[in-house]
Amino acid sequence: MSRRVTDNPEEMETDISRVASSRRHSDNGLPYVHKVGVPPKPNLLKEITETVKETFFHDDPLRNFKDQSKTRKLVLGIQAVFPILDWGMSYNLSKFKGDLIAGLTIASLCIPQDIGYARLANLDPQYGLYSSFVPPLVYAFMGSSRDIAIGPVAVVSLLLGSMLQQELDPVKQKLEYQRLAFTATFFAGITQFVLGFFRLGFLIDFLSHAAIVGFMGGAAITISLQQLKGLLGIKKFTKKTDIVSVMRSVFVSAHHGWNWQTIVIGVSFLAFLLVAKFIGKKNKKYFWVPAIAPLISVILSTFFVFIFHAEKHDVQIVRHINRGINPPSVKEIYFSGEYLSKGFRIGAIAGLIALTEAVAIGRTFAALKDYQLDGNKEMIALGTMNIAGSMASCYVATGSFSRSAVNYMAGCNTAVSNIIMSCVVLLTLELITPLFKYTPNAILASIIISAVIGLIDIEAMTLLYKIDKFDFLACMGAFLGVVFQSVEIGLLIAVVISFAKILLQVTRPRIVVLGKVPRTTVYRNIQQYPEATKVPGILIVRVDSAIYFSNSNYMRDRILRWLTDEEEMLKETNQQKIQYLIVEMSPVTDIDTSGIHALEDLLKSLQKRNVELVLANPGPLVIDKLHASGFPDRIGEDKIFLTVADAVMTFAPKMEP
Amino acid sequence: MSRRVTDNPEEMETDISRVASSRRHSDNGLPYVHKVGVPPKPNLLKEITETVKETFFHDDPLRNFKDQSKTRKLVLGIQAVFPILDWGMSYNLSKFKGDLIAGLTIASLCIPQDIGYARLANLDPQYGLYSSFVPPLVYAFMGSSRDIAIGPVAVVSLLLGSMLQQELDPVKQKLEYQRLAFTATFFAGITQFVLGFFRLGFLIDFLSHAAIVGFMGGAAITISLQQLKGLLGIKKFTKKTDIVSVMRSVFVSAHHGWNWQTIVIGVSFLAFLLVAKFIGKKNKKYFWVPAIAPLISVILSTFFVFIFHAEKHDVQIVRHINRGINPPSVKEIYFSGEYLSKGFRIGAIAGLIALTEAVAIGRTFAALKDYQLDGNKEMIALGTMNIAGSMASCYVATGSFSRSAVNYMAGCNTAVSNIIMSCVVLLTLELITPLFKYTPNAILASIIISAVIGLIDIEAMTLLYKIDKFDFLACMGAFLGVVFQSVEIGLLIAVVISFAKILLQVTRPRIVVLGKVPRTTVYRNIQQYPEATKVPGILIVRVDSAIYFSNSNYMRDRILRWLTDEEEMLKETNQQKIQYLIVEMSPVTDIDTSGIHALEDLLKSLQKRNVELVLANPGPLVIDKLHASGFPDRIGEDKIFLTVADAVMTFAPKMEP
Repeated sequence: MSRRVTDNPEEMETDISRVASSRRHSDNGLPYVHKVGVPPKPNLLKEITETVKETFFHDDPLRNFKDQSKTRKLVLGIQAVFPILDWGMSYNLSKFKGDLIAGLTIASLCIPQDIGYARLANLDPQYGLYSSFVPPLVYAFMGSSRDIAIGPVAVVSLLLGSMLQQELDPVKQKLEYQRLAFTATFFAGITQFVLGFFRLGFLIDFLSHAAIVGFMGGAAITISLQQLKGLLGIKKFTKKTDIVSVMRSVFVSAHHGWNWQTIVIGVSFLAFLLVAKFIGKKNKKYFWVPAIAPLISVILSTFFVFIFHAEKHDVQIVRHINRGINPPSVKEIYFSGEYLSKGFRIGAIAGLIALTEAVAIGRTFAALKDYQLDGNKEMIALGTMNIAGSMASCYVATGSFSRSAVNYMAGCNTAVSNIIMSCVVLLTLELITPLFKYTPNAILASIIISAVIGLIDIEAMTLLYKIDKFDFLACMGAFLGVVFQSVEIGLLIAVVISFAKILLQVTRPRIVVLGKVPRTTVYRNIQQYPEATKVPGILIVRVDSAIYFSNSNYMRDRILRWLTDEEEMLKETNQQKIQYLIVEMSPVTDIDTSGIHALEDLLKSLQKRNVELVLANPGPLVIDKLHASGFPDRIGEDKIFLTVADAVMTFAPKMEP
Repeated sequence: MSRRVTDNPEEMETDISRVASSRRHSDNGLPYVHKVGVPPKPNLLKEITETVKETFFHDDPLRNFKDQSKTRKLVLGIQAVFPILDWGMSYNLSKFKGDLIAGLTIASLCIPQDIGYARLANLDPQYGLYSSFVPPLVYAFMGSSRDIAIGPVAVVSLLLGSMLQQELDPVKQKLEYQRLAFTATFFAGITQFVLGFFRLGFLIDFLSHAAIVGFMGGAAITISLQQLKGLLGIKKFTKKTDIVSVMRSVFVSAHHGWNWQTIVIGVSFLAFLLVAKFIGKKNKKYFWVPAIAPLISVILSTFFVFIFHAEKHDVQIVRHINRGINPPSVKEIYFSGEYLSKGFRIGAIAGLIALTEAVAIGRTFAALKDYQLDGNKEMIALGTMNIAGSMASCYVATGSFSRSAVNYMAGCNTAVSNIIMSCVVLLTLELITPLFKYTPNAILASIIISAVIGLIDIEAMTLLYKIDKFDFLACMGAFLGVVFQSVEIGLLIAVVISFAKILLQVTRPRIVVLGKVPRTTVYRNIQQYPEATKVPGILIVRVDSAIYFSNSNYMRDRILRWLTDEEEMLKETNQQKIQYLIVEMSPVTDIDTSGIHALEDLLKSLQKRNVELVLANPGPLVIDKLHASGFPDRIGEDKIFLTVADAVMTFAPKMEP
């Protein structure tokens, strides 16, 4: 590494305004070349601690605990577990006003949805309401999102229902089915809690945005198709969820299975709901229109059926719904036997999907209102809420996108809106559930369809296509997998494609040729900057990734191929032979022993071709490992430079003609 | 993006010698800022073709076929499959001389090793010799490595043996065991062939150098321990390969199971072999000493046993070895039934390990002699050779490290040395195998130990520890897994650790703060360059990885954490507030939609804090996707710069005091 000392270094220290002209010749006429820094060697323990910290505690959750007294730490600790003790201190009437209105609005929206969603999970309608009572209460005490609305959601209900009915028949083995549902809910909670507690929350990041868009869209289609049963009044319907089976079911029953009264009720109310949705979307001021439309539909249609006794004309109605609050269900959870492991598997999958949805919602609204959200703490809250729920006859609850949006727009301030909603659900359970007896199933189907239709995010899909084809592929994989196969297959496809993308990047990193951007000392990819010019006799390549065992051989081969191509081209045009190969290593964040071996092989091959290897700007980890391996001695210490420009500057004058 | 036009651009075009001063003020007094290039938009098809090409054909195997006539292409095609037709054209007597000597040397080394290795695979001794006859012949016609010596090797023999005996008892179910061995060999060949044919050869790169070092070391220990049976003359020996079981077996039999005559013979010849090895290592001229020492040991000890009838003193001898060349074994391969799938599984694993070894050898010697080796073509050759071998009573053969080194040092020129070796083995099989009847097992054990001891590469392990702790962890995981559990577990551990490393890098990329290196316009990691200074009011961070769904949230959080830390520090010392956050994106090779979302979230958070977001040097893929998503409009087109220096230069004067 060459460092030429200037006569008057103080003078050379530039301030900001002189940055642009700071690269200048030193007084002795030689250009100034700064040497490459070798960072202080960290010890092994510190290195490991750092890695663990960045992996699990990158958000520095203990920041507030620093330099506090013991009592204060205890208080902070309790507040960390129960944030309500924190924000509750400054709660006041004006905040309550916002929360009350928001709570009542989401309650009116959740009650009809809950009844419908319980049907997606093949459970009796009251279980939907149960799940909107206990979990929101628990969340209000432990969660830190101010805007999320907790309760059953369509996608998780569908996923849970479709996985559960593969194990048990929801009609013939009703009791076992319910017990397995509670077991799955329990383990969904455990999974969420464990992920949060061990700070493994980052694992859900492995489900990419693109995959989720596709998965949700597919699930929405699947759910809507399922609703054709209720909407058309079909009695015999397939249990499969793929589009082919469902459409066959629909057409087979076309002649004698459809019920025109049901269709009239269902379709007209669906139109009403969609119009309400449209109004709400057009003008944000009318957000409450789509929010209360479902409840109005339920009331109107129930009244209509009751007056005209439409149930006698084969219009299917809810018929039976239990009155009273959640019965305990601890004893119903399978803690042993074959259903233990099945419940665990189903619960873990449903729990992860529920988590993904809740965390996405939490992040979205936290970003809108700019408050911090600790993902891992949220998972603990969601986990606890589902564990508690599984013991009080609830099935998996999570944050609902549509209701959270309504909650936000209705002006909620804290999780108190969830408590309000919870109280309304409690009153509903105690007082008016019997009235739902006459609610036609077609209305519930319309409500579900109008709720999930928003999950088909065509706009996002178009954007994915425009921005990143690979993401679009993952999205379509998930979408088609869900629609044509099943919810789990769709998920699996999405995860596999996402991982394949990561591996592809790690196995085949970009290696590009650089040229000098005119009127600068900057070297850039000549494909991106066609005006950039190659330096005669010097080939400059940049490796765009850490060099690991998975790509080290490719890196070596690819660089040699660039060299061969270049040399052939030069030979044809009778130009100067390549004498130096500069490898720009700025993007090479790390190298492992395989990578160093590949560099050594590269060096050997280059020596055979009479080309000298030069490295530019190796990062701290890289230079550290290169030194440990003794590579700089082999290549020559003076072949490692701070920048490509320095290297070119040093070697260009030395070039043989 | 601001581009200020200079009055006389021609004058500003710098030649190489002026590079160092090329960043200068333009005539209008304003610094020149080059705009960020947006590469021409590639169409989807071209993009996919490029990706496929780089993934599967990065070594450009069809380069020679370009611009050739049809007949020539045909000839080249045939030569590509059978390289012997290519190099055979220029074969001459002087080359043959080198090959003859090398072939004879490796033959003398391979014959005793083959007999020993067959025992590792729980097969009769002649199968080792069979495997040194057919596969090298096939390889000589199809392979492109000039130095590799083909035949059975210790590690693959052990791996095959230990996996096979989990399925069948090699003594009680001898016939089935042999049939399963041929089946596994067949599928090992198929696996190798398929990987090569579909150009999936890069998959073996996923077994890192570190993992292989650990695995080989562990296997060498395991193999040596297994030899205690022969060396100590123990009759009852465990079938497990882990160190605990083996040592227990050894000590339990200490009192009545050890045979002193065996120990004397074994240990003295082991000492002889190790001394020979030492001589060969000290002086490369005497490489032939360790090469012929095993054969001398066999001859001497066999003679000794024959004369003194040591076999009557319980010295175990080979006792039986078939005479004659390989019998056909096509009909013995299981093409149906339960052993089909078992054979496939075992064969696939053994085939992959064999491949790893052969490719590593091929690459090493190709680099030494500087010739190109197409990994995928090699795999096809190795696969064909094992498929052919499985039909001629051979078990999995591959390149042997020790014999290839001897081959190289003895001056081989082409694969003809393998043909010579093959012929010697043929003569041995036809003529002198009966003489091996009296060879004591202890000698074979000594030969195996002295052969595998070189696989324990302490030096490489120390280097791994010094260079890369994570690699060392993978190495030790594989090593301890093999020694204390089994060969497969060791392999599994190594693969899992290697993948975990990749995922960790992808999930938690480095995000560092940059400072200006004095007297340059270069901004570098302030941890690596402690002399680098921060710019007041501007925080510069660099993201050291592609921004994908797996790390986008981390990236956003980590940048915000740097900002918070910095702001707290500035507050404490009453310094200027941060007004600009520059994200240096040079190492960001790619971004996906999740990454763009994270950038948008970052922008929102920064806006809340009154900090402006500035991007420096986004790469071609990144700028392309940013434009597609409309992000530049949101952040402001004039906030994207070619370099950090440009950005600082633009904003530093604008800063509020």
